[in-house]
Amino acid sequence: MAYEQASAIARKRRAASIAAFYTTPTWPEAELPANLTDFAIKSGYYTTGELGIIESEADAILENIKTRTWTSLDVAKAFCKASALAQELTNCITEVLYPEAIERATYLDDYLARTGKTVGPLHGLPISLKDCFVTAPHPSSNGLAAYANEAMDKDSLLVTILRDLGAVFYVKTNVPVAMMMAETTNNVWGETRNPLHKHLSPGGSSGGEGALIAFKGSPLGVGTDIGGSIRIPAAWCHLYGLKPSFGRYPTYGGKPSIAGQEYILAINGPMARSLKSIRLYSEAVLSDQVRPWDFDHKCVPIPWRNNVIQPPGRKLRLGLIGIEDGLVHCHPPVERALNMTKAALEKAGHEIIPWSTEDHEAIVKNLQAAFFDLGGTAIMDVVNSYDEPVFPSMQGYAVAAQAGESELGPTKMRLMNLRRNALQKAYLDRWNASATADGKPPIDGIIQAVSPWAAPRLGETQRSGLYVGYTGVWNFLDFAACTFPVTFADQAIDVARDPKTFKQLSDIDGRIQKDYDAAFYHGAPVSLQVVGRRLEEEKVLEMTEAIAAALAAAESGK
Amino acid sequence: MAYEQASAIARKRRAASIAAFYTTPTWPEAELPANLTDFAIKSGYYTTGELGIIESEADAILENIKTRTWTSLDVAKAFCKASALAQELTNCITEVLYPEAIERATYLDDYLARTGKTVGPLHGLPISLKDCFVTAPHPSSNGLAAYANEAMDKDSLLVTILRDLGAVFYVKTNVPVAMMMAETTNNVWGETRNPLHKHLSPGGSSGGEGALIAFKGSPLGVGTDIGGSIRIPAAWCHLYGLKPSFGRYPTYGGKPSIAGQEYILAINGPMARSLKSIRLYSEAVLSDQVRPWDFDHKCVPIPWRNNVIQPPGRKLRLGLIGIEDGLVHCHPPVERALNMTKAALEKAGHEIIPWSTEDHEAIVKNLQAAFFDLGGTAIMDVVNSYDEPVFPSMQGYAVAAQAGESELGPTKMRLMNLRRNALQKAYLDRWNASATADGKPPIDGIIQAVSPWAAPRLGETQRSGLYVGYTGVWNFLDFAACTFPVTFADQAIDVARDPKTFKQLSDIDGRIQKDYDAAFYHGAPVSLQVVGRRLEEEKVLEMTEAIAAALAAAESGK
Repeated sequence: MAYEQASAIARKRRAASIAAFYTTPTWPEAELPANLTDFAIKSGYYTTGELGIIESEADAILENIKTRTWTSLDVAKAFCKASALAQELTNCITEVLYPEAIERATYLDDYLARTGKTVGPLHGLPISLKDCFVTAPHPSSNGLAAYANEAMDKDSLLVTILRDLGAVFYVKTNVPVAMMMAETTNNVWGETRNPLHKHLSPGGSSGGEGALIAFKGSPLGVGTDIGGSIRIPAAWCHLYGLKPSFGRYPTYGGKPSIAGQEYILAINGPMARSLKSIRLYSEAVLSDQVRPWDFDHKCVPIPWRNNVIQPPGRKLRLGLIGIEDGLVHCHPPVERALNMTKAALEKAGHEIIPWSTEDHEAIVKNLQAAFFDLGGTAIMDVVNSYDEPVFPSMQGYAVAAQAGESELGPTKMRLMNLRRNALQKAYLDRWNASATADGKPPIDGIIQAVSPWAAPRLGETQRSGLYVGYTGVWNFLDFAACTFPVTFADQAIDVARDPKTFKQLSDIDGRIQKDYDAAFYHGAPVSLQVVGRRLEEEKVLEMTEAIAAALAAAESGK
Repeated sequence: MAYEQASAIARKRRAASIAAFYTTPTWPEAELPANLTDFAIKSGYYTTGELGIIESEADAILENIKTRTWTSLDVAKAFCKASALAQELTNCITEVLYPEAIERATYLDDYLARTGKTVGPLHGLPISLKDCFVTAPHPSSNGLAAYANEAMDKDSLLVTILRDLGAVFYVKTNVPVAMMMAETTNNVWGETRNPLHKHLSPGGSSGGEGALIAFKGSPLGVGTDIGGSIRIPAAWCHLYGLKPSFGRYPTYGGKPSIAGQEYILAINGPMARSLKSIRLYSEAVLSDQVRPWDFDHKCVPIPWRNNVIQPPGRKLRLGLIGIEDGLVHCHPPVERALNMTKAALEKAGHEIIPWSTEDHEAIVKNLQAAFFDLGGTAIMDVVNSYDEPVFPSMQGYAVAAQAGESELGPTKMRLMNLRRNALQKAYLDRWNASATADGKPPIDGIIQAVSPWAAPRLGETQRSGLYVGYTGVWNFLDFAACTFPVTFADQAIDVARDPKTFKQLSDIDGRIQKDYDAAFYHGAPVSLQVVGRRLEEEKVLEMTEAIAAALAAAESGK
């Protein structure tokens, strides 16, 4: 079968599944403004009650259900309805689970009425899922025609855990081919766009999540990240997105891109508009009652801890990576976000020190080679089985698959491991060496841009080239990181750099910088990330809270 | 260079280094009894003061140094002197570090006198190290001629940590070729024998450690384990040996056998005659002050916790693996040890349930294939570079190296990972399924023999064949485990099984069973292991304490 038929079947299923519940309005494209989220809110599509629900964050939703202000069913229906419009306007949905959502929400309401208790800390909370999470029997296409209509028979462990905690699943969301691009497009479902600025990409690979949450079609979503796939869409959609270290959150039973590839490990984590949502999710999933490590052999037995920064509220020491990482410069709006964040943190009494990227080039090159060498055959076998066209940013996989695997035996794998281990150890040593002779401890974390762009124009990463060095370096090191929104691109202040004086660090750097156009990018979301060491998820979240507070204080101080 | 010259140089260095400090007595072999430890103690070699030191356990040694009853120098010298005789009688030493030991002990005594304080919780404790730990510039031969005289330039991280905690290093100990056999012999240093019974093997690969500690030439040693290499020598030398899960104890900077091989991960852990020694070592190394995870990128940030079994002293539910694992039967003395332990635990109120080994055969076969496929070229390149003869139990590596690596690319590696992961997950599920319908929780741990043999006759694993299925299965699963001594083989009760009715499970099972000879094995040490889940080191140690207490109570109740 060719991919066109597989795509047609999948799209027909999606359309029919939505149409069975909602008839969404349509508008001529020319009438749609850049900001689709605002447009939808004001479009008259929602009732006032529905708006109250979809504009709430997870903590408020849970509280309102618990106190019986809202029913779980009200909440589920509001988000199902929102997701239908999100699909119409951004093309962010893959599988539609409305019937299950209604059934589950009804059960939860009945349970609460009957017992006076919630089933768990996520009772009634709609959670959207990236397509790779399995909610049987729905397919997990992972953006590949071969999987687009394949029934699955066993839920991902995380799905079971979240459901037991009270979550309501209602949609799965779009991803790029094999989840290995930074924009969300594929030959099955097509391209997803950014609801905050329709000409821009929502990022990827968890781009359907990014779009749906930014559209207020979901209060909380779960993405995955092997090179930036939570953080890039979170950043481009102005969200918080927590990328944990491997083993912290349960990953068993998800549909992988490159099954069995363990050189760089894919993880999953929450994405939301509020840090409270990220926190309540983490506390619930990693509680000592749930004990995911008893069910996932790769999970480490560390329950979620609060107040790991001691004493609480103490000032932080943060490394700051500037406008380039040795390979690629960021765009002017991102530079301004770095400056804003530095100023806000210093105003709040935190210490910011410049952080060198001396070893990033070696890390990025090893990471990139590993994806191609270890994933080429795995991905291209699936892509080719349905005659799928290969996207420009996936050409590396095709080239690697063509080259074959004959020289990639155990000896080469061992050398690859040794190179990775040496780079990991050296980074830890460099981190420790940031302690000072006069007794200051090492830095608490590192602040860096998430990508060179504020959210870029659609298709840009196919044209200029895919660069995930800002995020991938932390996957290679298996460090924890969280994104945070900072500002929006502003044509009045974010002027393009002078091409006469700009010195490119690489070809891709030149192409990316050339793409910057202050007028076009006006209003594009700009976010950054803060990075902690391996398995320091709580600390990263607490640092993000401190940064968000500093940014808010600086903003209100204006 | 051929191995003979490398060996001659290394042995000359060892002999000279000992002779510079001690002239050890020699005895005609015929005059030496089976039990060399007892013989040495009574030989008149030691002064009364020295005997008081070397017969003490780690906690007593630390206390006596702290209270200035003994100096660190007295203690270091006593163990140096004991190790010299251990070498003479068992051939367990590789590198001799006496000058450093004396210097370090002198410094520690001076520090204590000057400040009134100890440098750390291991102040003055002699710790012996398996050869693979690097104490620069001494070589880490790992039983290979190519490395036997190669100066090393950087201490293993664990060595630095232990030294900072106050440990005194004085010897490194013998291992088999590439640390991949279960007996300790190689073409550089020769064969190590068991001090508790000179015709028996001390096991391997941490066999030099086993012999030295059982000889009372060390109060505490550190071994490594990738298929049983801590537990087999600990068991055959009647010691406690803790095999942690990977990432719990720092492994950075050790000399590996198969550098960069990460399919089955080698770990390190303590070996000692007393559980208190194992505990004080673990508490010191994994303290929140040391934070090894800040220096080893593979270490997980879990400080050592006490009283993880709650409420303390509660009765345990333990699975018991019987006299065979589906592939190989144990010898009669080991069967008796299993029965003794079951009876003692039940008498103490613990619950023992039979535990199936239904998936052990698949695990053992995957493990064995992985060692050969992933380690063949790596090991044989080194072995062949010095024309070393290949030991019978290493032939699998030679065969694999001959076969080459052409079919072992990323796709095959991914399939190997998927098989391993499926077996790991299935075992966890099976463990969870031991919870009962009437509310009993899953088992706390599993008791199993460590090897088919009580300590076997020297060379036996080369003749009958190497079988490490009883231990390797837990490496494959990355579960924590600890050995405990139970009894000694007794010709009066441990009668051979009737060959007419014995049904072998495999060829190697038949050969191993045929080797049993009640008279010859009389007095051989017999030990077992208790296994916990991944990263449950504290629980495993607490279970071992409960088992040791039950065995002691049953013994004294006689």
